[in-house]
Amino acid sequence: MNIAVLGTGMVGNTIGSALIRLGHTVKMGSRTKANEKALAWVAANGPAASEGTFADAASFGDIIFICTKGDGTLDALRAAGADNLHGKILIDISNPLDFSKGMPPSLFVCNTDSLGEQIQREFPDAKVVKTLNIVNCEVMVNAGKSSATDRGTMFVSGNDADAKKLVVKTFLTPWGWDDVIDLGDITTARGTEMLLPIWVRTWGATGNGHFAFKVVR
Amino acid sequence: MNIAVLGTGMVGNTIGSALIRLGHTVKMGSRTKANEKALAWVAANGPAASEGTFADAASFGDIIFICTKGDGTLDALRAAGADNLHGKILIDISNPLDFSKGMPPSLFVCNTDSLGEQIQREFPDAKVVKTLNIVNCEVMVNAGKSSATDRGTMFVSGNDADAKKLVVKTFLTPWGWDDVIDLGDITTARGTEMLLPIWVRTWGATGNGHFAFKVVR
Repeated sequence: MNIAVLGTGMVGNTIGSALIRLGHTVKMGSRTKANEKALAWVAANGPAASEGTFADAASFGDIIFICTKGDGTLDALRAAGADNLHGKILIDISNPLDFSKGMPPSLFVCNTDSLGEQIQREFPDAKVVKTLNIVNCEVMVNAGKSSATDRGTMFVSGNDADAKKLVVKTFLTPWGWDDVIDLGDITTARGTEMLLPIWVRTWGATGNGHFAFKVVR
Repeated sequence: MNIAVLGTGMVGNTIGSALIRLGHTVKMGSRTKANEKALAWVAANGPAASEGTFADAASFGDIIFICTKGDGTLDALRAAGADNLHGKILIDISNPLDFSKGMPPSLFVCNTDSLGEQIQREFPDAKVVKTLNIVNCEVMVNAGKSSATDRGTMFVSGNDADAKKLVVKTFLTPWGWDDVIDLGDITTARGTEMLLPIWVRTWGATGNGHFAFKVVR
C-alpha cells in the first residue's frame, strides 16, 4: 500500500521504517521538500522510501500516519491540504503535549475535547483513527518490546468502524498488538490522550520508557 | 488501628468492611450522625464498626480514608475539621468526576492541578496519599478480583515517603496489590485522576468494571 508518514522525528522514522518492513511504500512528508532528516531516512530505507512536502506525502498515501508533534499536527494537515485527505484514513499518533511550562508537560487540550476530535472536526471527510499514542514509538511497532512474556492493551478510537478494523488488521496485529479494545467514536480519544500524564510520571518513576498499559480483566 | 472512613456510599461500605476484615476498628463518618446507610453498615459489620459525623470519625481515626464523591471531598474534610486531620495520613480514593453534563463524566479539576493537590494545599499538616482511585471498589480491596491469573499495578502519590510506605504495607499488600509504583509527590495524582476517562470508556466498551491497569515492563 502507498502510505504517507507526516513528520520526520523519531516517531515518523520508526513508523516509516516499520511500514517498509511490512512491505508498504512510504513517502515521508515535512514542511519543505528535501528536509535533511527525511533525506537521511530515505537513504537508510531503500527504494520503497521517498520524501516530499506534507502535500506530496498526503497526495501519495492511501493511508496517512500523523507522526508530528501534537502542537504541529493541525498545521501539518492544513499544509497537506483537505483535498489530499478526503476519504482517507488518518491514523493519529500525535499527542497534545504542552512543554511550554517545562517538565512534566501538560496537555493543550483535554477533558471535554481532544486533538483527535479537533482533527476530525477540521477534516470531516477524513476517517480519523486515534491509536498507538500511548506507548513509546519502539513499542508501537513491536508490542513485545515492553516485556518478553506479557503484552499491553492497545486502544482504537474513531467514528468509522471499518477504518478501525482495517487499522487493527493491517498494522496493529502485525506489530504484535493482540489485545485491542475499540473504545468507540473519536470522542474516546480524550481517554487515551489523557493517559499521557500517567505515562510521563511512570517513565519518571521507573526510568523505563519501554512499557505498555494492559487492561487486566 | 482506629480508622475513619468518610463517606457512606458503595466505596465507603466496601473499604470499611475490608478494613474490619483486616482487624481494624472503623468509624464511618457522614454529614449527620445516625445516617441511615451508616447505621446499616454498622449493623452488618459487628462490634468493630461504629458511625458518627465526619468530625467524630476524623477525631477517632489515626488514619482517614476519603471515600466521598469527589465533589463532596473538600466539604467533608472541612466538616471533619483541620484539627482532627493534623499530622494524620489521609488516603484519598476520591475522583474529581463531574456528572453535571451527563455521561460520560468529565473532570472538574485536571491537567495542571488535581483533587489530591487541592486537599494537600487546604490541609498542609495532613499527609495526603492518593491511591486506589483507579479501580472499582471491589477491586480496590481484592486485586485478584479483576483476573484469576494476572494482577494490575497500583500507583501511590504523596509528599511523605513514610506515609506512602505505611499505606502500601498496611493496606495495599494485604489487598493483593503486589505491583505498586510510587509515582512521586502529590502532583502525580494528576496522572492517576486523569485515568478516569479511559476507565469509564473501557468499562463502556467491555461492559466489565472489574478490571485493572497493569504497567507491562
